[in-house]
Formats: sequence, structure tokens, C-alpha cells
Amino acid sequence: MTGRKRVLSGMQPSGLLHLGNYLGALENWKALQDQHECYFFVADWHALSSNYADTSRIREFVRELLIDWLAVGIDPVRSTVFVQSRIPEHAVLHLLFSMIIPVSWLERNPTYKEKQEEIKEKDLSTYGFLGYPVLQAADILLYKPDFVPVGKDQLPHLELTRELARRFNSLYRPVFPEPMELLTKFPKVLGTDGRKMSKSYGNTINLSDTEPVVRQKLKTMMTDPARVRRHDPGNPDVCPVFDFHKIFSPLPVIEQINRECRTAAIGCIDCKKLVADRLVERMTPIWEARTALTKDPSRLEEIVEEGSRKAGEVAKATLHDVTEAMRI
Amino acid sequence: MTGRKRVLSGMQPSGLLHLGNYLGALENWKALQDQHECYFFVADWHALSSNYADTSRIREFVRELLIDWLAVGIDPVRSTVFVQSRIPEHAVLHLLFSMIIPVSWLERNPTYKEKQEEIKEKDLSTYGFLGYPVLQAADILLYKPDFVPVGKDQLPHLELTRELARRFNSLYRPVFPEPMELLTKFPKVLGTDGRKMSKSYGNTINLSDTEPVVRQKLKTMMTDPARVRRHDPGNPDVCPVFDFHKIFSPLPVIEQINRECRTAAIGCIDCKKLVADRLVERMTPIWEARTALTKDPSRLEEIVEEGSRKAGEVAKATLHDVTEAMRI
Ligand code: SF4
Ligand code: SF4
Repeated sequence: MTGRKRVLSGMQPSGLLHLGNYLGALENWKALQDQHECYFFVADWHALSSNYADTSRIREFVRELLIDWLAVGIDPVRSTVFVQSRIPEHAVLHLLFSMIIPVSWLERNPTYKEKQEEIKEKDLSTYGFLGYPVLQAADILLYKPDFVPVGKDQLPHLELTRELARRFNSLYRPVFPEPMELLTKFPKVLGTDGRKMSKSYGNTINLSDTEPVVRQKLKTMMTDPARVRRHDPGNPDVCPVFDFHKIFSPLPVIEQINRECRTAAIGCIDCKKLVADRLVERMTPIWEARTALTKDPSRLEEIVEEGSRKAGEVAKATLHDVTEAMRI
Repeated sequence: MTGRKRVLSGMQPSGLLHLGNYLGALENWKALQDQHECYFFVADWHALSSNYADTSRIREFVRELLIDWLAVGIDPVRSTVFVQSRIPEHAVLHLLFSMIIPVSWLERNPTYKEKQEEIKEKDLSTYGFLGYPVLQAADILLYKPDFVPVGKDQLPHLELTRELARRFNSLYRPVFPEPMELLTKFPKVLGTDGRKMSKSYGNTINLSDTEPVVRQKLKTMMTDPARVRRHDPGNPDVCPVFDFHKIFSPLPVIEQINRECRTAAIGCIDCKKLVADRLVERMTPIWEARTALTKDPSRLEEIVEEGSRKAGEVAKATLHDVTEAMRI
């Protein structure tokens, strides 16, 4: 396995995964497994930074996240799948990093103020919310990865991780690599209301939805708003259902819809039925895998335990390097 | 052992212990052991908050601190003696607390700005320095103590610990007690230059000093500056050597010096010799115990390992309560 580069990525258990997460992050993770040594972790401590006031569903979301990952094809044999809170070294490295990172680095972090503005209904003026990038740096550097897949918006966080690695290396001695970004373009997946699919809009199709729910969500999905009656011609370019076709249907069907919608040769009900069938086809193996995993919680626990054990060994070794370098 | 109250206290390994620490904190700890179930810990992670830039002597200071404690009579059978960095639960609880504590609580902490002003030669504008009271709260609450011995200047920190306990208890469910202060009056011990004994003044007599060093330090100790020649009468009230007599000499000797100094019946050399003998008498058993412990590092390690094991069990149990309450 030498020569393979190490990749690390994580997700917060802050809700159920939807098609947007699947087509974006998870398909990317699946592909990364083929070339790299991958570490994928559930960032449950991170979820507290914005959800500390209501933690009632975190455990459920952790479990569902793991089920989704495995169901879509994250392979626990080739990749190390683990849960952050099972590895206390994340908290220890976070504490050690907190001692050397200037507060000003955190205050100038662009996403800090931004996110506080964005999520006005929650009180996010906590010490831990300010220190979010410190925990993230610990999460990453503990595994000394070569690459971290990030979207463009997360680049400043990764840059801060690299700055912290440099600062540690120069204060003590070189322990950490400076992980490179693996810039990932996340396809924009629209939700049932035509806006970006996002759990905060309540417009998602979740991996854990059942077939009837998915079909029902498609039935009531927004179409070209100008196409009011069956015999009105439509415009696929402004219809989110057509976007689904572009993702899930074969090219001939896409071309057919593109033609027949504009002449009202096909109605929205039939058009949606076509894409619903394709979507169900795509999701069926995921649902089957989900059902199997849900029925066998001890199998899930075994996978997570084994992944956390493997991750824990790497984390321990890094923390040993860290405390030797710091001479504590 | 039921009915005994639990007491927790710690010290930073930021230097060698001196007579001031001994007569203040350690004599107090020794006395507390008789009535309470005591937890005493070396706060080595805390030492990083102001010493992260030079950690070269932290391990040495940790070892010396433990040797000093045991040598003066901290009893590892009755008390639990441990090292913070051996208990990762401190770092985990610190992380969890960081998620619920408002930054404003830390910014308004009076000692934050004060200490930054005081220690101008170091860059203390780190995230960890700001979060000092969060780690302290974790250190304390992990052991659910009834009492925490504090000097008056540390009362605001303990109050913040109680506030955090209340906040946690009300956000989730009651897990933490609100530890009461055990107000401790630390006697003011003067150093060899007549100022308060403090390692930052370089005027200390350390528990690890040898007898010749102690005698030499007393020989060159400041006296009443107005008493220049042997036949000049002196004023014990302004002489730091007389303060040592008041601590270490029996009453008749104190009275004798108080009289004979004022009439120049006794000279400073003899006066110092008298107190040096007393001091050496007091320190000899400590030195003997220090030598024995220094010669037997595996015995020291056994004690710390056993103490850390006992402390770790309590810490694990508390953290279990915490994660159940938070449902993570
Ligand atoms: S026919 Fe299809 S593409 Fe055209 S508006 Fe209706 S749902 Fe949209
Ligand atoms: S005789 Fe003793 S008390 Fe008096 S000045 Fe000298 S050292 Fe101080």
C-alpha cells in the first residue's frame, strides 16, 4: 500500500443526508477510495459548535450518517471510517493547539462572522464556535494527510490549518505536513422547490426517504411555473425536474423531454414519473444496503469500532510525536 | 470513608518550589489531608498557556513538583496525586465546555487582561490563554469536588467554574455540583532581597536547594539596610531575616533577637547563623525524602501511575455522565 497518498475528510452529523450530499461529497469520497488511503470521520464534537443547545438528535444523525456512507459504497475495508468522539486525541491536540494559536487568527477568519450573521436564531458567540478552526486543524493534522478534499469556501480553513502546522513545526520541531487541498466541485443539486437542495429549506430528498416518499416528493416538485395547464408549452431550462433528468436519465430521455416539453407533447405528470423511476432505480441498492445495516446494528458497531481502533492508532502515534516535540 | 468531603487542588509546573509555596500551599494541603478526600494534580497542560514558547523544562518541573509534594508529606495513600496530561478526559471536558461558554465570559475575566499586561515579554494573546478558565473549570468539575482551596485573587475563576456548572446543568441536566471555595490565607514569605519571595525576582530559597546553598543564600540575605557596621544598632521590624526568625525560631530566640539587635548585642552574622540552623533543621527531613525519591524514579512513577489511575476512573465516570446528559 506504499505510495498511496493519505486523504482525510469528515462530515458533521447535523441532519439526514440528501441527494445533494450524495452527488457531491459522497460520490467524490467513493472515487477517492480507488486511488488513496482514505480516512472518513463523523465530526460529532464539531456538531456541538452550532447545535449545543439542542443535542437531542446527534446520536441518531451519527448512526444515520454512517449507514448512508456505507450504503452508498464507502468501503470500510479500504477506508478507515470512524467517529471523532471515540478518539480523545482529537480533544488533546485541540487543547495543545489552543495554546499556540493567536486569537487574532480566529477573529479574522472570514467564516466566523459570516456564519454568526447567517444563523441569527442561535447564540453562536461561544468560545468553541470561535475556536472551530482549531478543532478542525487538530482533526486534520492528527492523521498527517497529504490531501484534504474541500470546497472553495473552506479554503481559508485549510490555509489556517497549514499556518498552524508551520507554527507548530517552527516553535518545536517538524511534526506536521502541510496538507494540500483537493479542490472539489460540488454539483449544484436543486431541491423540490427549485432552490438549492438544503435541509434548512426543507426541500430535500434524503437517502433515508422511502420509495413512496421519494415518489410523493417528486409529484409535488416545482416545475416551470409558467406551465400552468397540460396544453401550455413548458421551458425545461427553468424547470428543476429537468435538472433531475439531466442527472439521472439517459441522454435519449433528456433529449426527448427537452423537445416534448416545449411543444406540450409530454405533460409534467408523465415527465416526473419518468425521472422518479430513474431515481428509484438509482436509490434502490442504497435503500437495500440501508435496510440491511439498520437491521444489523452490531455489524455497524463492529465497523465503527474497527475503524476507530485503526484511526486511534494513527492518532496516538501523532500525539506521541507532538508531546515529544513539545517535551511535555 | 463516607462523609468525607472531596477537595481538589493543583499547581502548575512552571518552576521549582520555594519556601513561600511550601509554607503557603503545601502546608495547607498537608492539613487538608487529615479531614478530606484530596485530589492534587500537576497542571502541566496549564503551564503551556504562558510557557508554550519555551517548554524545555516542563518535564523536569513536573518531576520536581511531585518530589517536593511527597517530600513535604503529601501522602499518596490518603490523597490522589496525579498529572493532568495523563488524563485525556481533562481535554475532552475542556472541548465540550468550550462549546457552551460565551466568549464574553472569558473576555470580562479580570485576570485575563491583567496577566497579559503583567507578562509583557511573552505573547499571551493566544486562544488557549483566553480559554484558561475553561480548562480550569474542566480540571475542577471532572472530580465533582465539594471544596477548592483558593487565594482571594482566584475567586473570580472559581465563580466562573460555578457559573459554567450551572449553565451545563440547566442546558442538559444536573451533573455538576457547584464547588465551594476554601479560602486560604497564604502567609507572605519574604525573599533574600526583602521583597515577596517569588521565582520572578530570583530571591527564592527552593526546597531543592542543598544545605550549603541555603546557608549561602542566608549569609548574603538582606538585613536592616541602616545597620551598616557591627556596632550599629538594628531594627528587626524592617529586617527580612527577622521575619524568618518569626517563622522558624522558637519564641525565646525571637525575643532575644528582637532585643539584642536593637542594642547591637548580636551581630547579623550570628543572627543569620541562628536562623539558618533552624531552617536547615526544618528542611533536613524534606531533603532526605527528596534524595530518597530522586534515587528511586520507579517508586515515583508507581505513585503517579497509581494516582493517575484512580483519578482517571473518577474522570471517566464524570465524562460518562456528561456525554449521557448531552446525548452525544
Ligand atoms: S414537462 Fe418536465 S421539464 Fe417540462 S415543465 Fe413539466 S416537469 Fe418540467
Ligand atoms: S541582627 Fe538579625 S534582625 Fe537585626 S538586622 Fe541583623 S539580621 Fe536583621
